[in-house]
Amino acid sequence: MQTRSSNITRNAHLISRSDRAHRNGHLAGVLWFTGLPGSGKSTLTRALEHRLFELGVQVTVIDNHLVRGGLSADLGFSRTDRAENVRRGAEVSGLLARAGRLVLAGFISPYRTDRDTARRAVGENFHEIFLDADVAVCERRDSARQYERAKAGLIAEFTGVSSPYEKPLSPDLTLDTALLDVGQSIGLLVDYVQRHFAVQDGINSAGRR
Amino acid sequence: MQTRSSNITRNAHLISRSDRAHRNGHLAGVLWFTGLPGSGKSTLTRALEHRLFELGVQVTVIDNHLVRGGLSADLGFSRTDRAENVRRGAEVSGLLARAGRLVLAGFISPYRTDRDTARRAVGENFHEIFLDADVAVCERRDSARQYERAKAGLIAEFTGVSSPYEKPLSPDLTLDTALLDVGQSIGLLVDYVQRHFAVQDGINSAGRR
Repeated sequence: MQTRSSNITRNAHLISRSDRAHRNGHLAGVLWFTGLPGSGKSTLTRALEHRLFELGVQVTVIDNHLVRGGLSADLGFSRTDRAENVRRGAEVSGLLARAGRLVLAGFISPYRTDRDTARRAVGENFHEIFLDADVAVCERRDSARQYERAKAGLIAEFTGVSSPYEKPLSPDLTLDTALLDVGQSIGLLVDYVQRHFAVQDGINSAGRR
Repeated sequence: MQTRSSNITRNAHLISRSDRAHRNGHLAGVLWFTGLPGSGKSTLTRALEHRLFELGVQVTVIDNHLVRGGLSADLGFSRTDRAENVRRGAEVSGLLARAGRLVLAGFISPYRTDRDTARRAVGENFHEIFLDADVAVCERRDSARQYERAKAGLIAEFTGVSSPYEKPLSPDLTLDTALLDVGQSIGLLVDYVQRHFAVQDGINSAGRR
């Protein structure tokens, strides 16, 4: 650090992405998990966070639950508010990525236009991960019985029932979570991270220097 | 990680604050820098980020510039919008802290009520750092000539000129940036971080395991 005189100026530098990547032993970025309610976003992001943490990765989950609980507490569930909620989730994900973290962002984000907004907000190293499972499968897994309540009209505009889900046209990774179990999906995701977020000798060196 | 069956559930655990602290070698939290325009928020947060990064700390600056550029791009400068901007900055700071980071948040945040909101949003380990320098000193340092333009009526509701600054009643740390130079302030801040964010053998062990 350069020590400056008391004539304070505003042009000191932030730490670069490269400096952070070399410190952490891996690149930063966002894995954006999209899919129907019940497709496995929460389960896979949390299990992957745990696995990557064990591998020394600076990793963070951001999802609807975490964002709605604070940052988006002022928003409702209109189309506009849902889009704004996704936008804020993406902006936060981008801030975390620029701080060096690998972000596992889980949002239904059913509209392509909202996911495009997310990609722009994040910028570098945005990866769209599509959890592909059809409504029947997701409904069978739905221990909270959200699908049942949506079909009974108790939840308005529920994605997959009364509101559309627009499949990604060209996702960076697709996981058929109707066929893959959690362990298989996590294995594929760890491979994906190792291929796309390695610095030199790979993420297994993270934490060492 | 426990590998589960394809019967996906939602109750996998996030990494605890304690796990993250032990990994990183320091506690997480937020140093919330408040003070007049020109009091040194940008200079000190950036210089401190640099110094702490060298010490192995997982550290991130969040400030008005970074937040206004994306997350708060929809907000203007009314009293309501400024309060919302501070709230979002605090929510993001809290998310980063819960992800294990030491956050250096720099916001003028002239109203006590907004800083109280920030403290509540962050929760654990919120530290209010007051950069205490009077308007005359801040104006002398103001290379962007904002004070001059505010006095000429070209910037509305400029804190310290046409809008009030409510001093903290009981800040966690006060730095008289009219008397201290940057190096002295950074020295005091590093001491403060070492006292309040150490895990066992202190932040100097960060990055090792």
